[in-house]
This record gives sequence, structure tokens and C-alpha cells, in this order.
Amino acid sequence: MKGVQFLVAFVLLALASKLVSASDPSPLQDFCVAINDTKDGVFVNGKFCKDPKLAKAEDFYLSGLNIPGNTSNQVGSMVTPANVQQIPGLNTLGISLVRIDYAPYGGLNPPHTHPRATEILVVVEGTLYVGFVTSNMDNRLFTKVLHPGDVFVFPEGLIHFQFNIGHTNAVAFAALSSQNPGVITIANAVFGSDPAINPDVLAKAFQLDKNIVNQLQSRFWWDNN
Amino acid sequence: MKGVQFLVAFVLLALASKLVSASDPSPLQDFCVAINDTKDGVFVNGKFCKDPKLAKAEDFYLSGLNIPGNTSNQVGSMVTPANVQQIPGLNTLGISLVRIDYAPYGGLNPPHTHPRATEILVVVEGTLYVGFVTSNMDNRLFTKVLHPGDVFVFPEGLIHFQFNIGHTNAVAFAALSSQNPGVITIANAVFGSDPAINPDVLAKAFQLDKNIVNQLQSRFWWDNN
Amino acid sequence: MKGVQFLVAFVLLALASKLVSASDPSPLQDFCVAINDTKDGVFVNGKFCKDPKLAKAEDFYLSGLNIPGNTSNQVGSMVTPANVQQIPGLNTLGISLVRIDYAPYGGLNPPHTHPRATEILVVVEGTLYVGFVTSNMDNRLFTKVLHPGDVFVFPEGLIHFQFNIGHTNAVAFAALSSQNPGVITIANAVFGSDPAINPDVLAKAFQLDKNIVNQLQSRFWWDNN
Amino acid sequence: MKGVQFLVAFVLLALASKLVSASDPSPLQDFCVAINDTKDGVFVNGKFCKDPKLAKAEDFYLSGLNIPGNTSNQVGSMVTPANVQQIPGLNTLGISLVRIDYAPYGGLNPPHTHPRATEILVVVEGTLYVGFVTSNMDNRLFTKVLHPGDVFVFPEGLIHFQFNIGHTNAVAFAALSSQNPGVITIANAVFGSDPAINPDVLAKAFQLDKNIVNQLQSRFWWDNN
Amino acid sequence: MKGVQFLVAFVLLALASKLVSASDPSPLQDFCVAINDTKDGVFVNGKFCKDPKLAKAEDFYLSGLNIPGNTSNQVGSMVTPANVQQIPGLNTLGISLVRIDYAPYGGLNPPHTHPRATEILVVVEGTLYVGFVTSNMDNRLFTKVLHPGDVFVFPEGLIHFQFNIGHTNAVAFAALSSQNPGVITIANAVFGSDPAINPDVLAKAFQLDKNIVNQLQSRFWWDNN
Amino acid sequence: MKGVQFLVAFVLLALASKLVSASDPSPLQDFCVAINDTKDGVFVNGKFCKDPKLAKAEDFYLSGLNIPGNTSNQVGSMVTPANVQQIPGLNTLGISLVRIDYAPYGGLNPPHTHPRATEILVVVEGTLYVGFVTSNMDNRLFTKVLHPGDVFVFPEGLIHFQFNIGHTNAVAFAALSSQNPGVITIANAVFGSDPAINPDVLAKAFQLDKNIVNQLQSRFWWDNN
Repeated sequence: MKGVQFLVAFVLLALASKLVSASDPSPLQDFCVAINDTKDGVFVNGKFCKDPKLAKAEDFYLSGLNIPGNTSNQVGSMVTPANVQQIPGLNTLGISLVRIDYAPYGGLNPPHTHPRATEILVVVEGTLYVGFVTSNMDNRLFTKVLHPGDVFVFPEGLIHFQFNIGHTNAVAFAALSSQNPGVITIANAVFGSDPAINPDVLAKAFQLDKNIVNQLQSRFWWDNN
Repeated sequence: MKGVQFLVAFVLLALASKLVSASDPSPLQDFCVAINDTKDGVFVNGKFCKDPKLAKAEDFYLSGLNIPGNTSNQVGSMVTPANVQQIPGLNTLGISLVRIDYAPYGGLNPPHTHPRATEILVVVEGTLYVGFVTSNMDNRLFTKVLHPGDVFVFPEGLIHFQFNIGHTNAVAFAALSSQNPGVITIANAVFGSDPAINPDVLAKAFQLDKNIVNQLQSRFWWDNN
Repeated sequence: MKGVQFLVAFVLLALASKLVSASDPSPLQDFCVAINDTKDGVFVNGKFCKDPKLAKAEDFYLSGLNIPGNTSNQVGSMVTPANVQQIPGLNTLGISLVRIDYAPYGGLNPPHTHPRATEILVVVEGTLYVGFVTSNMDNRLFTKVLHPGDVFVFPEGLIHFQFNIGHTNAVAFAALSSQNPGVITIANAVFGSDPAINPDVLAKAFQLDKNIVNQLQSRFWWDNN
Repeated sequence: MKGVQFLVAFVLLALASKLVSASDPSPLQDFCVAINDTKDGVFVNGKFCKDPKLAKAEDFYLSGLNIPGNTSNQVGSMVTPANVQQIPGLNTLGISLVRIDYAPYGGLNPPHTHPRATEILVVVEGTLYVGFVTSNMDNRLFTKVLHPGDVFVFPEGLIHFQFNIGHTNAVAFAALSSQNPGVITIANAVFGSDPAINPDVLAKAFQLDKNIVNQLQSRFWWDNN
Repeated sequence: MKGVQFLVAFVLLALASKLVSASDPSPLQDFCVAINDTKDGVFVNGKFCKDPKLAKAEDFYLSGLNIPGNTSNQVGSMVTPANVQQIPGLNTLGISLVRIDYAPYGGLNPPHTHPRATEILVVVEGTLYVGFVTSNMDNRLFTKVLHPGDVFVFPEGLIHFQFNIGHTNAVAFAALSSQNPGVITIANAVFGSDPAINPDVLAKAFQLDKNIVNQLQSRFWWDNN
Repeated sequence: MKGVQFLVAFVLLALASKLVSASDPSPLQDFCVAINDTKDGVFVNGKFCKDPKLAKAEDFYLSGLNIPGNTSNQVGSMVTPANVQQIPGLNTLGISLVRIDYAPYGGLNPPHTHPRATEILVVVEGTLYVGFVTSNMDNRLFTKVLHPGDVFVFPEGLIHFQFNIGHTNAVAFAALSSQNPGVITIANAVFGSDPAINPDVLAKAFQLDKNIVNQLQSRFWWDNN
């Protein structure tokens, strides 16, 4: 009998830690602190949350955004995130933050989109050439060279990039209008998808020789996020 | 005196046709029929609308989606839209439609995103290889070969494409969850932007020789929308 | 001991298949593929979803919209749906599709509302007299006769209908701005509710003799959806 | 020269009073007090607003909801509104109020929908039989008899009614989740539209003899709002 | 073996009653009736709901808003709520109601905000001095003296109050644009928080002697909600 | 004739600069760059925007967030904003940024709410004691001491503060989930409103002697925003 009670308690406990990944766009209570994802789970739009009575200050806290990201990689940049994956208290609240480090002489945060967020970036150190491209027909490029204290906006869903054109490290903080903004690095999604897109599609779309497409598809595509 | 009256009338008239391009996400009245854009105008999020008393059935109507689009172009496809630009009554209502024609043996609706809409497509004629790629880190490719009567969904903001792998014309209708979904054709926005993106950015991001980037940037990029 | 482990596994599995029917309006991740409803379940606004890692192309796919619906019924029409019930990948994405077939000489999609969606319809075959009515005070009727390739819009929440005035079958595709738009067929909801509305209410509201109301309430009301 | 100045001033003034009817769903400032509609105007989703510096307490105020509505009419009820038409300060704020009076022995607020709002009603006086019907397929009727102090909810978009089954006047206050909820009185929209719906549509949809439809369409349909 | 089956059933049952508190902003079905909160539970944004087939009229119903609230307390007022905690059918529907009673000669609903709702109030009995204050820089006060039948609006998020300046009881009904609007009574949150805010913060912010702050922080702060 | 043309041009120009302050929550085009406010104007929810063809990179840009704010004031802190007032390109995009400077030994960003935004803050320099208070009944205080690189979240609508407990300047960047989040400094709105709130209300609400209320109401209340 005791065994049964223990088992029931155990299962309920297992369950509590199992129902992960679910919340939503506009908060319906003061906060709804996310519970960590589970492997065998059921999900919701956003994240499941824990009992608000159990919320604590640590749920709204993260340390470490003073530590430079390692930029020794293919693109020479690193994005350190502070979104709902790192700060469960952000769940349902519609905002997040990143620190971005760029190596000197060409550190690049390559062309990408955030499918669910606008980005506002402030430069803390270094010199960045930044830009975004509008949608069809015009595909206008808006660019600016940014110095410390400069702010720039990348509207939701548009392709954008930042490029370190200085000879020192560059550092920026950027805020995003979603607790889970998502990132689509264009080159990675197009040439590095798993499995690969039919190369005829890419050769025609990008006006590239099919051999070059095949080469690109066999390369490694680093994700700096 | 008459001149003054005439002038006032003229200015009000000019104004009425001038206040263009403004409405919004969730309707706050039965409908809010858009007024056409003006050259010298003031705008709002969405479109300005006309007096609801002046709305007529034609504002909610469009003809011509039975006419095949001309696919004699670089990519071998043509998108014929029925959104708020063509049907002013769609303003504020959050939905639109397109007809897509694909030339035989390789007509391609090239990789693109809709920054403000999910797409649901139904094939009316022909055989299409279609797919979308998820965001980072995984960049998983979801594909399917579609035949007449088959339906496929492309989630909001994700890169997707359709490719005619049959030896006949292909035709599809697709609906989008916005009256003004927007289109970003990836290759056009990246290699055909105006002005051009710094080629160092694209060479590094796409792991391409800078000469190839320069060649691509000098090409013509057809917009099939 | 093994039995206990097995039991825990079993319960977790049972749970996974049990938590059904829940998601929401604006996607907070790339997608959130719905899990089928359960009988003993807990629900959420929208639908619960499965682990995104388990999503597959089939979740975004449906076949069969090339097959004519059976119009041998009371109203002479049939709606074949492609919404979140048929395509779990539509969950959270805010759009759906239907095929509508109309019998010749009077096939009718009777006056109804979608409480959560605007509809945009394109005629593929035949001739339809379509219309919608605005809200109080004016209750203006907007109508149009549609031929193949014609498009018409029915704004969210308004009463609307389509009527085959031609001597051939008619076919249309219609998109709706919700993954679960809902349908309220006016006559069915008013005269065919379960249980019946107090006939005094309907006699007064519709200026009908109470005997006629009683007759109407005893009839069968076909749901063409 | 003075004439020109006068003219400019006059045109700007005309403009200010002309830009009517436009705001939106979620407030982007403390408030956005509506300006009254104009005859020659340009509109927006919702209402245009006045300079917030000119807002005054009266913009958020209405008197008179203590005065019984006149129920000497076809349906024996009267709805006295307090929405954005009466209280301009409600613009963008997503809520409104009504007082409803019901004549003794059968005063009826006939079956209707609010296309943009849920309703919550509290009875102040009298006895009401109230109900709503769910959407297809089930069309379930939910009813309750209400006494003073009783509260009932009518979910957004569903057909609902209130009926005075007592021998005294009845009075209720009801709140709606929109500053402009809209009302569609079912019988009025179906049988009293302007112009009339093709009677073949209504005869088939409501299983009524066409003569009865013609009679109904020639009647007067009182709007109690 | 039977014991195992029983155990599984028991756990599933326990689960069903355990998954509480979760739904969301815009309904995705006719309704989504909330299930009561549990102690050991998992939560979602809003509330979990029960199987729609099990919904009944009582879920949309509450009685007792005719009963005066007890105003024999520190502030001389009492708020009787009718929100999603009392009426589970309100879940996802974005509206709620309260009755407010005020003692004669100074009954006060003290300065507070609703973080998620605009309020519209109608006076049923008595005389109220009401007001709200706009945000920085101006902090303008909008006030009005209200009599029976008078209506006033308190925009979302702004500090507001009602004060009985008459010599009789006062009664009002107020509707709020959320099923769970939340209340922050300013004095209680600032001086009565648990644990107490560092008194140096409050002394500086409120220009008060630290002794007075300490006194205030040791007092009892009545919550009239 | 030329005079008339000039006049028309002049009026249209006047109009263009006059239609100010209007946009909205969810973008319906790539961007909708705000036009500056005017004195004699008509407004919309959000801001009016300029012709997208006239948008330029400067509309999405601001410099100066590297410059320390002047903290020589009553509360010892200064907020330097980067919202839609400073960056017109933020209009409709739902995000903004601030830099906050705090004087050593007690620089305070006093208790306040943002009625339309959640805040996420990252410390760049110094040591801050920060906190927020939940809504009724509990009014729980969540606090944390933050060092450089630490991040904290203040959920939408809740009262929160930051206090420099170190002996050096402190600096933070904070992002807000609205292009126009609004600020309500509690002490300023309660004791510094214009005109003053009836002191009987504040004496009762804050359990303060009326003389103290009168004194507080006669003081100057610095707005650090």
C-alpha cells in the first residue's frame, strides 16, 4: 500500500517535470515562469509554467553577459542569448536580449532573419557596418556605420547583418520583441539544410552552377547563435 | 468668393485621395475598405479607409484568377495576387489569396519568406516538389511531392519553395494569413539589393569567392510576384 | 521493481496521448503540431502539440481536395475542410482552407457566420450568386454573381451565403483566417438547436406563427460542413 | 495675403473635423479619445483621435443609464448603449457597456450575435430566461433563468437572447469586450436586409414556403439597439 | 494486475484534476471553460480547460451580485468579483465584472491599477468622486462626481480611485477588459509588500522621513478585493 | 493660377506635417516610420507614418547612448530613452531601449510601472539592488543584487525599482516590449498629480496624517525620464 502511494507521488512528480515547453503571446497573469523542456513531453504554444507560488527571483535572473563570446569561428562572431531558454521568467512576456561579440577585421553576424521579432541594437565597443533589406519588389538596402552609443533598428522578418569593419573587437547588446524570437541564418538554411534541398532548385534560384551548389551543400555551416 | 469655395473643395478632394495606405490587424468595424495609395501622402499602419456608407460589392471582388500567369521568365513561374492592393475590402481582415503558375520541367517559385503570413497551398494541376526549412540550429528540411488536390502548409516566416517536377504546367492556389503578407525572395534580397550589400559580407556568409559574389550582384534578379 | 518502471513508463505514455486539444493565436515557435483530441482529457485554448523534433512533412499535408463533395443532401452543397482537425500542422498558424461543391440549379451554402474568421473565396467552376449582410442598423446586403476565376470576400462574423444559379456543378476554394474558424449555420442554430429554444422566443423574434415555429423545430437540419 | 492665411486656416480646420472614425485594438498611449465622424471623411480601423492634451474628464463620462429605455415596440425591449459612439474616451480601450430594459410578460432581446465581443450580463431587476447556442455540428443550447444579482456570459460570436418571463419589468447591465462590439439581429439581417436576399435562398435555408419568405421580407423589423 | 489497472486509472484521474490554471487571450473555439487550480500543478498562460462536451450552463453563471459587500473595514469599501476565478466559462473571453460597495461618508476604493484591463463603471446608488492620473511627464488628474446612471472609464494601467462623498451607501458595477484583470493597490504594494522594500528606497522615492516609512511598513494593509 | 497651385501645395505640405501621432501594435508592412507630432493635429492609435519610399537609414538610427546621463537631481538617476519619440522607425515595431545612469551611494530609479511593457535590464557598470512587487493579494517582493553582466526581468505592469547600493556610478541598458511603453512614477502620480488628488483620499489610502499628505502634495516631484 505504501508502495502504491509512493508510486503515485513519483508519477505525479515525474509528470510535473515532464510537461514542458508551453505558454503564450500576451500575459494573462503577473507572470508564468517556464518549466524546462522534457524529452518525452507534450507541448503548448510557448511553454508550460510552474505554480506562480513557487516562482523566485532567480527565475527572472541571468548572469554572464559581461563575458566576451568566443569569436574564433568561421564567421568571427558569437551571439550570447538571454531569452526564455536561459531566463524562464521571460515566458509570455514578449522580450529578450543578446550580447554579440565580433572579431576584429571582419567579424560578421551573417545575413539572417528573426521570424518573430524586431531587433534594436546598441553598440558598446568597436565599429560596425550594419544593414537590412526590404521585401520585394524594391529590396532596398538600408545601411549605417555604427560607433559606441549608436542604436539601430532591424524591423521584424527582414534580412539583416552586422559586420565589424574596425581593427578592434566590437561588442553590442540587442533586444528582440519576443521571448523566443528564432533565428534563420540565410546561408545555413539554404545551403546547409538537413537533408539538402534539391540542388536544381538552388542552382536556378541563385543563378549558380550546379557544381558550386553541390560544393556549398557539402560544406560545414557554423551557427553563431 | 467662388474661387475660394472651389479651392477648398479641391483641397478636400485632393486630401481624400491623398490619405492612403493605412488600416490594421484586427477589425474594429464590419469592414474598412482601403483607399488607394497616393504619391504625396501620409500613411498609417495598414491603409486608410473610405466611408463605410460608400462601400460597394465591387470593393470585395476581383476577377481574373482563371487566367494563367505568364511563366516565360527567368524562374519559370508567376504569382498572381489577390491581396489588399487588388481587393481594397480585404483591408484589416487578415487574409489574402494568390494563383501560382509553374512552367513544365522546372518552373520554380524560388526560396522566399512571407514576413507576416503563413501559407496554405492547394494544387489544382501538375506535380510539385515543395518544402520549407526550420530555423536554427537544426535547419530541418520538410518536403513533399504534391499532386492535384493535395494541400501543404508553409509556417509563417520560414524559407520555402515550390518546384514543378512534372512535364505539364502546374497550377496552385495559395492563401496567406495577412491582407499584405509581403514576400522576400532570398536570392533577390541578398544578391540583388539596391544598393548592393558589401561583397565581403556575402563572400564570408555564403562561403563564395568574392568574384562570384560580384558576378551575382551584377546579374538581373527577376521578381515573380 | 521492473513492474514499477514499466508502470511509470506506461502512465507517462498514456499521458502523452491524453493531453489533447490546445495551442494558440500567434505562433511562439516555428510550429506547434497539434495532437489529436482525447476522450478523458484536459484541454487548452487551441490544441496541445507534440514534440517539435517529432514533426514530419505529413503533419503539414492533406490529400483529397480534388474529389468532389457529395451534394445529394437537403441544401445541395458540401464543404470539405482542410483545417487543424485534418492538418495538425496548422495549429497556431491562423489559416485554413475548404473546398465547396454546389449541385446544379440551386445548390446552396446556406446563410452562416464564421465567429473567428474572414473568408476569401475563388470560383473554380460554375456560376454563384453570393452575398453578405452588414450588422445593425443598416443590414445592407452586398451581392455579386461570380464566374470561374472570380474572387469574393466575406468579412469576419457577418452572415453570408453562396447559391448555385447555374445549370452545372459549381466548385470553389475558400480560405479562412483561422485554423479553427467555426461555422454557425443560422437556420440550424436557431430552429435546430439541442434542446430547442423556447418557441415563444422564436415566434416573436421571427414574426412567425408559433405553429410554424413548432414545425420548423421538429424538422431535420442538415449540416453541410 | 490675409485671404490666403484665412483659407489655409479654414482648410486645416475643415480637415481636423473631417478626419473621422479611426483608431485600434490595443492602446499605444494612455488613451486616444475619438473624434466624431464626418460626412466627407477618410476613416481608419477604429476612430481618429484628438490631441491628448485636449482630452478632458467629460470624454470618459456618460450620464443617463438610470433612465429606463422605452420598451413599447415590436420586441418589447430596448438597449441603451455606452460605447465609443457615446463615450469617445473608450476608443482603443476594448470595452463598453449597455443597459437593457425588458417589458413584462415577454419583453425579448431577440437572437443576435456580437461579431467582435463576448458579453457578460448582470440582472438588476426582474426574471430573465437567457441562452446561447454553440456552433456546428452540435448547436447545443445553454440556458438559465436569471434573477436579480445573477450573472451570465455569452461567448463571442455565438447566437444568444434574453426573454422576460416575469410579470414585472426587467433590467440588466451588460458589458462587452469591444469599444464597438457590433450587433447582428438574426431575423433582421436575414429577412430585413436592404436590399432583400433572393427568396429562393431563404426558402431553402429555412425550409419555409416561398410565400412565407416573401411575407417576412415585406415586414418591418425593429432594431432594439 | 487489477491493482495496476486501478492505479493507472487513479493516476490519470489525479492528473485530470491536477492540470489547472491555463488558457489564453483570444478564443480559438466557442469557449474553453477553466478547470479549478490545483496545489501540485502545472500551469499555462491563463487556465487549462475541461472537455467542451462537458461544459454546462452553470459554467457561465454566478449568483449573488445583488448582495451588498461588507464595507466595515479599513478603507470602507468592498469589491465582489465575477471573473474567471468565480465563472470558469469566462476563460479566454477577455472580460469580467465586479460589484463595488462603498460605506457612507468616505468609503474608498483606494488608488490602484489593473495591469491587464481598462475599467468602465456605472453607478447604481450614491455619489462618488472618481478619478485617474495619466502617465509621466504630465501626471494629469481627470476627475468627476458621479450620480446614479453615470458612467466613467479608467484606461488600462492608469492609477485610479473611487471615493464615496455622499451620506448614503454607494454601489457600482464595473466591467474590466480581461477575464483576469489583476489589481495592484498602490499603498499595499509599496508599503505592505512581503518582504518589505528597503526603506531607503521608499524614503527617497516618497520624500518621507525613514521613521514614517518604517511605521507604514509595520502597519496592516487591507485588501478590499 | 500659380497662386492656387502654390496654395494647394502649401496646404498639402501643412497637412503632411500636421497629421501626427498614429500607428499600431503589429506591423502591416515592412515598417511605418513615424512623422513628428504637430500642435494642431489629428491623431491615431500610435503614430501616423511617412511614405515608405521616403524612409532612410537615419529613421532607424540614434546616437548618444554612450553619454552618461546627468544624475544630479532629487533621485540621483537619469533615464535616456531610445523609443519612437527619438527613433521614428520604431513605430509599429513593439520595442524600445533606454540607458539608465545611477549616482553612487543611493542613486534611485524610483518605484514605477510601465503600463504597456515588460522590461529586461542588463547591468554594464556598478551594483544595483533591484526588485518588483506582484499584484494583490500577495504583493510579494522579488529582489536581487545585480553586478555587471547580470540581467533581470520586470514583468509588464508591475511596480519595480533599481537602487545603486555601490560606491561608484552604475549604468544599465534596459529594453522594453513597446515602442511607447509609458512610465508611471508612483510617488509623482499619487502626490504630484496636476491638479492634486483630494487629500482625504490619499490620507486614507496611505494611512498618513492629512498634514503630511498636504506637505507631500506641495513638494516638487522630479521626473527622471
